[in-house]
Amino acid sequence: MATNEMPGTVPPELPTRPDDALRVRRLADKQRHGRAALDAVLDAGSVAHVAIVDDGQPLAIPMAYVRDGDRLLLHGSTGSRLLRQLAAGTPVCATITLLDGLVVARSAFESSMHYRSAMVLGSCEVLAVDEREAALERLTDGLIPGRAAEVRPSTRRELAATSVLSLPLQRWSVKVSDGEVEDDESDLDGDAWAGIVPIEVRHGRPRPAADLRADIEVPASVRALVDGR
Amino acid sequence: MATNEMPGTVPPELPTRPDDALRVRRLADKQRHGRAALDAVLDAGSVAHVAIVDDGQPLAIPMAYVRDGDRLLLHGSTGSRLLRQLAAGTPVCATITLLDGLVVARSAFESSMHYRSAMVLGSCEVLAVDEREAALERLTDGLIPGRAAEVRPSTRRELAATSVLSLPLQRWSVKVSDGEVEDDESDLDGDAWAGIVPIEVRHGRPRPAADLRADIEVPASVRALVDGR
Repeated sequence: MATNEMPGTVPPELPTRPDDALRVRRLADKQRHGRAALDAVLDAGSVAHVAIVDDGQPLAIPMAYVRDGDRLLLHGSTGSRLLRQLAAGTPVCATITLLDGLVVARSAFESSMHYRSAMVLGSCEVLAVDEREAALERLTDGLIPGRAAEVRPSTRRELAATSVLSLPLQRWSVKVSDGEVEDDESDLDGDAWAGIVPIEVRHGRPRPAADLRADIEVPASVRALVDGR
Repeated sequence: MATNEMPGTVPPELPTRPDDALRVRRLADKQRHGRAALDAVLDAGSVAHVAIVDDGQPLAIPMAYVRDGDRLLLHGSTGSRLLRQLAAGTPVCATITLLDGLVVARSAFESSMHYRSAMVLGSCEVLAVDEREAALERLTDGLIPGRAAEVRPSTRRELAATSVLSLPLQRWSVKVSDGEVEDDESDLDGDAWAGIVPIEVRHGRPRPAADLRADIEVPASVRALVDGR
């Protein structure tokens, strides 16, 4: 497995000084610099691994998110200690990684993966109560576009039980590995196969809930997910 | 989106005291306790988000891994600052999350996801030089079973450029969400659809490298990946 190509080195070099924080020092050819590249990765994902420090112990916690303009929205129960820590403004790192393929080289060393990965550093802010409903609709539509309009509005009790946080897209880094296999020249004469094996993610056939009334059809939002696969 | 069902609460409650470290306090019904459940999640994944603390800043970094008995193996370039930090024994949290489906409830609040997630806390150890080659073969076979036997052995130069680390499976937590939709009883009379939309991950058709000799066929390891999809 190529030690210089694995997700293990995404981004391999870590912030030390604020002004130099997120420059990728190794494999700089994989770094993308435009906001469009960041948005493309964020909009393709649905779950971030959110890292925080809890009494000196780092923790990486999977959380559903959606991009809303220049920020990520996260949410959770007001009763969750994690959410309270995020709401208090603890430093966070939200990393989104999409695996796109296996890079099968002629040697283990040069083998690696195709991936897209975005890392966002910062601190969360708590959304005001009057912003919460719209934000929850964004989160619902983030997973299933169009779903928010198909369900009843959230109740006051539900809104009160939910904390919604935003993380600004100010300090971020994007890396994309999508290149060809790069074997050592001395391996090209060998008999080993080389190529890319794509990793495909798709939505499967919807399974109605056991207690669903027989006359209720699969809604447009879910049909679009499955047809778009 | 159900604030009490999202990956955002996996595991929602964070370690404070060592003896109580990884007990899931909310949604305890989703926690799994056996090593078999842990191994099943770890063996189904290939990339962990590894969280460390760098000068007070948490960072979550995607890294390929493989389970090797009672430990995870990670690797990277000896030139990477991240790897050096891990090698120095900095506290880490390696989280593996597999998304299995969308739980589409009759309300946004009760909608959520099916997932499997494992979190391993601890510190890495550096593998001795004489263990490195076997560990790299495990890592290669972790992504593509059988591939290590199809490629030449690693060279001394390659082994010298690669750092391999192990993280013991001592402190860990597993959560699995795979249940039915659970709607509020008052929503059951409505017309909204409810059900599960599976998320399927599979290997696509292998694409040979542009410079591959025409007489070299797709190897058994890659064929097995694609057939097994």
